[in-house]
Amino acid sequence: MQDGPPTADHESPFPLAQFLGMTTTLVEPGRATTSATLGPRHLNPNGVAHGGVIFTLVDTGMGHATTSLLEEGQHCASVEIQIRFLRPVRRGVLEVLTAVLRRGGRIVHLESRVHDSEGVLVATASGTFAVLGP
Amino acid sequence: MQDGPPTADHESPFPLAQFLGMTTTLVEPGRATTSATLGPRHLNPNGVAHGGVIFTLVDTGMGHATTSLLEEGQHCASVEIQIRFLRPVRRGVLEVLTAVLRRGGRIVHLESRVHDSEGVLVATASGTFAVLGP
Amino acid sequence: MQDGPPTADHESPFPLAQFLGMTTTLVEPGRATTSATLGPRHLNPNGVAHGGVIFTLVDTGMGHATTSLLEEGQHCASVEIQIRFLRPVRRGVLEVLTAVLRRGGRIVHLESRVHDSEGVLVATASGTFAVLGP
Amino acid sequence: MQDGPPTADHESPFPLAQFLGMTTTLVEPGRATTSATLGPRHLNPNGVAHGGVIFTLVDTGMGHATTSLLEEGQHCASVEIQIRFLRPVRRGVLEVLTAVLRRGGRIVHLESRVHDSEGVLVATASGTFAVLGP
Repeated sequence: MQDGPPTADHESPFPLAQFLGMTTTLVEPGRATTSATLGPRHLNPNGVAHGGVIFTLVDTGMGHATTSLLEEGQHCASVEIQIRFLRPVRRGVLEVLTAVLRRGGRIVHLESRVHDSEGVLVATASGTFAVLGP
Repeated sequence: MQDGPPTADHESPFPLAQFLGMTTTLVEPGRATTSATLGPRHLNPNGVAHGGVIFTLVDTGMGHATTSLLEEGQHCASVEIQIRFLRPVRRGVLEVLTAVLRRGGRIVHLESRVHDSEGVLVATASGTFAVLGP
Repeated sequence: MQDGPPTADHESPFPLAQFLGMTTTLVEPGRATTSATLGPRHLNPNGVAHGGVIFTLVDTGMGHATTSLLEEGQHCASVEIQIRFLRPVRRGVLEVLTAVLRRGGRIVHLESRVHDSEGVLVATASGTFAVLGP
Repeated sequence: MQDGPPTADHESPFPLAQFLGMTTTLVEPGRATTSATLGPRHLNPNGVAHGGVIFTLVDTGMGHATTSLLEEGQHCASVEIQIRFLRPVRRGVLEVLTAVLRRGGRIVHLESRVHDSEGVLVATASGTFAVLGP
C-alpha cells in the first residue's frame, strides 16, 4: 500500500505533478478530473504518451476522489490499479474522469475513463483504495 | 494501445525516464531490471513513492523485456497492466525485475516484482503487451 | 489463452452453463447480456453467490460479445479478465451486461457490469480477448 | 464484496465445488492448493477448460489461504481478482497453488499459479481480499 501520514492537503503540487503539468479538480464528492496537456516530456521513445503518464493522472485522480469521501482523521492508500490502454495518444489534452463505484467501510472501489482532445476514449482503469485511520 | 512507429532503440532516455533517474538493463532475453534511487521528486504529498513512479518503472521494464524477444521489424504496445501496492516506500533504491511469462505470436504476458533496498517486496504487477508488425 | 478450434456455435449450452442455468443474449453486435437466477447451487459456504459463478457469467458474455464482431474463419480466446466484487448477492437474478470497448485488429477490450434484481451494481469486470485466425 | 456471515468451516463442499470435483488443501498457513481433474463438464464449447472453472479454483484457493491467517471471529471477502490465461488446457489435472503475498490488517494480497499435468504454467492470478470482523 502506498500510504503515509494523514495530510490535510492532497492538492499541494508535488514534483511529479509539476513535471507533468497535471491539474486535479474535484467535480463533486467522489468524482474528480485530472488533466495534462501533452508535450515532449510526456512522450516515450515512440512519440506517444508514456503509460506512466496516463497512470499517474489516474492514480492521482483516484486518490483525490477517495479523499473527498473520508471522515475526519482518515487517510487513504492505493491497494491496486489496473489500467487498460485502448489507443495511443500523441498530442492534445488528456482528461481523466474518476468516480467512486462504492465507498465501503474500509475499501473504496473506483474507475476512470481517459479521453483525448477529440473526446475519444483512449484508456480506462479501475482500482481499489484502502481507508486508514479511525 | 500505447504503440508507435518501430524504433531500433528503446533505450534512449526519454524525458520522464530522465526526470525519474531511471535505468533499465536487459538481464537476458525476456528479463529486464529497472531501477531508480528515491529522492524528493519521486514522492507524493504523503512522503512516499508515488504510484506513478513505480508504475513507470514497471511499464518501461515490460516494454524492454518484450522488445528483447521481437523479430526484425516488429514493435510492441502495452495492452493492460495491473499493479499491486503491498507496502509504502520512502527512501532507498526501487528495483523492478520483469520477466516474460509467455511470448505468444501476438500476445506477450509479463510480470514484475518490485523490491526496496532491504530486499522487501513492495509491489507486484502483471501485464499484457501486443506484438505489432510482420 | 483459452482458445480452441473455430466453432460456428458459441451458443450451444455446455455443462457449466447448464449447471448454472445461464442464458446469453446478443443485444447488438459487440454487446451481450448473460443472466442466471440464483439458487442453492450458486452459493458458497457463506450463503452468497460464489465469485466463480459471477466470473463465469462475465467470461461467457465477453466471449459472446467478441464473437459477434469476428470475421469469417476467426475465433477468439480470453487473454485476461479482472473482476471486482462490490457487494455480496444472496438471491434473485444476476444480470451481466457486457460491451466491447474497442475492437482492434488482434486485440478486443471489453467491460461488464453486473446488477442484481433491484438494479444494484454488484460487480464490474474488464477483460482482453485475442482474435485468432485469418 | 463477496462476504457473508462468519463460518468455521470453509471446507464444506458446496454445490459448485462438487460439480467441478474440486479439492482444496491447506499446505501451510497462507498457502493452499486447489485441484480438479478435467472432464467434459469443465470444458467450453471449444473443448478447452472454461475460464470460469479455472477462476473458481483460484477464487476458492485464495479464500482458503486467507482464512488460514484470520483471527478468532474474523472472516474474509474477495475484493477483486485478475486472472491471466496463458495457454488452453484440454485434459489432465489442473493444480492451483495460491500464496498470500502480504497479510495487512484489513487487506490481504494473494497470487496463484495454475499448472497442468505436465507442469506447464497455464494461468496466473492475483487478488485482494478484505478482512472483516473484530
